[in-house]
Amino acid sequence: MGKSILITGGVRSGKSRLAEDMTLGLGRRAIYIATAQAHDAEMADRIARHQARRGPEWRTVAEPLQLARTLRDTDGDAPRLVDCLTLWLSNLMLSGADWDGACAELCALIPRQSAPVVFVTNEVGAGIVPENALARAFRDAAGLVNQSISRSCDELWLCVAGHPIKVK
Amino acid sequence: MGKSILITGGVRSGKSRLAEDMTLGLGRRAIYIATAQAHDAEMADRIARHQARRGPEWRTVAEPLQLARTLRDTDGDAPRLVDCLTLWLSNLMLSGADWDGACAELCALIPRQSAPVVFVTNEVGAGIVPENALARAFRDAAGLVNQSISRSCDELWLCVAGHPIKVK
Amino acid sequence: MGKSILITGGVRSGKSRLAEDMTLGLGRRAIYIATAQAHDAEMADRIARHQARRGPEWRTVAEPLQLARTLRDTDGDAPRLVDCLTLWLSNLMLSGADWDGACAELCALIPRQSAPVVFVTNEVGAGIVPENALARAFRDAAGLVNQSISRSCDELWLCVAGHPIKVK
Repeated sequence: MGKSILITGGVRSGKSRLAEDMTLGLGRRAIYIATAQAHDAEMADRIARHQARRGPEWRTVAEPLQLARTLRDTDGDAPRLVDCLTLWLSNLMLSGADWDGACAELCALIPRQSAPVVFVTNEVGAGIVPENALARAFRDAAGLVNQSISRSCDELWLCVAGHPIKVK
Repeated sequence: MGKSILITGGVRSGKSRLAEDMTLGLGRRAIYIATAQAHDAEMADRIARHQARRGPEWRTVAEPLQLARTLRDTDGDAPRLVDCLTLWLSNLMLSGADWDGACAELCALIPRQSAPVVFVTNEVGAGIVPENALARAFRDAAGLVNQSISRSCDELWLCVAGHPIKVK
Repeated sequence: MGKSILITGGVRSGKSRLAEDMTLGLGRRAIYIATAQAHDAEMADRIARHQARRGPEWRTVAEPLQLARTLRDTDGDAPRLVDCLTLWLSNLMLSGADWDGACAELCALIPRQSAPVVFVTNEVGAGIVPENALARAFRDAAGLVNQSISRSCDELWLCVAGHPIKVK
């Protein structure tokens, strides 16, 4: 069975870099599963910066919604990095999909993977309660997704100011 | 003297479930001290979901404001779970009560309890500074309450994605 | 070479008090480098409360922008406490200065200091994505500054409810 790792932390806490290092520590070639969609210039810029940092040992697969299918399709020798679950959840909620079912399907799949998989997610629930009801629903859902995925993963890491704390 | 434990973390980080497990680890029957008030459908729904999860070994006491009195009244053989301090603080501030004095009274009481008590609180101060002055005052107060209660407790745990980190 | 320490955490998590204790643990007299500017009554009140807590062993230097120069000017026998980097970054961004360059200059300076230096910063990126573009830019910049400074420091601590977790 392939090792499974969840990396969480606040924005710009060094999660993606840690995840890239961990993924390349699990295989010479790796697959980057990008959930981001370049809806606006700010996001396009962020995607471009992340891509520029990754070297030629990476193959990129863009998949905003069907993560379970993508994990099945890419299961082989190379470790996968899924960056990130928070955007995936946001894509699911915005498209009206059953995010709860999609998360359960993903969790059931994790222990059945042959190749390793590293997930990146975000801490979004340690601020003041948002006035916006959609934002409250989103941070509730994000917390539940993080709990479910971390329960299914072998390891859980929290990034703080660029440095990892091993939680599980 | 009864053991005292504070559990903190972001929203939906698994605090309540950890607190329930820890409380039942301290006694066969337990008392759930609920500070939540069902002001709206969203909160009523959250309260109902939490209650449905707890089994018949729990007795529930609802107390939005008088936590010190409730701790004195319930001190006996059974461990208590107070869920949560952040809502208690919010109730105190909204009712114009002296939250600072109420917190000091509670802290003084903790080391004098015979039965164990487990407190749940929230991290609300790790986001961007809110534009709303009341929200800023609330997160300052919440941080101070968390510091005071954790100083009075034997143990402090931080929940991250459903998993606990022992801080103290 | 003087020891260098970064202390991070949410608002009112006990960072300043921990930083003061650590700084006084590194020398009998200490220098407090304050980056805060009393723009309004709320901030003036916070500055006054922090000052009242510090004893006569502290000398205060106020410097909202030129941290690198202030570190050079104060390098001697006494440990320095810089409180805090988040306000410094905010001052730089509001004045249109090159915060990225200023951060790189500061990082290069840290390993060349004779006297110890303790930095306080804030976690601002663990809440929901702000609707305000400036707030998003600020929390991105704050995360990058925290990563850079923590990489240059010997130690990194995270404050939770008044208690420190050693991260590095």
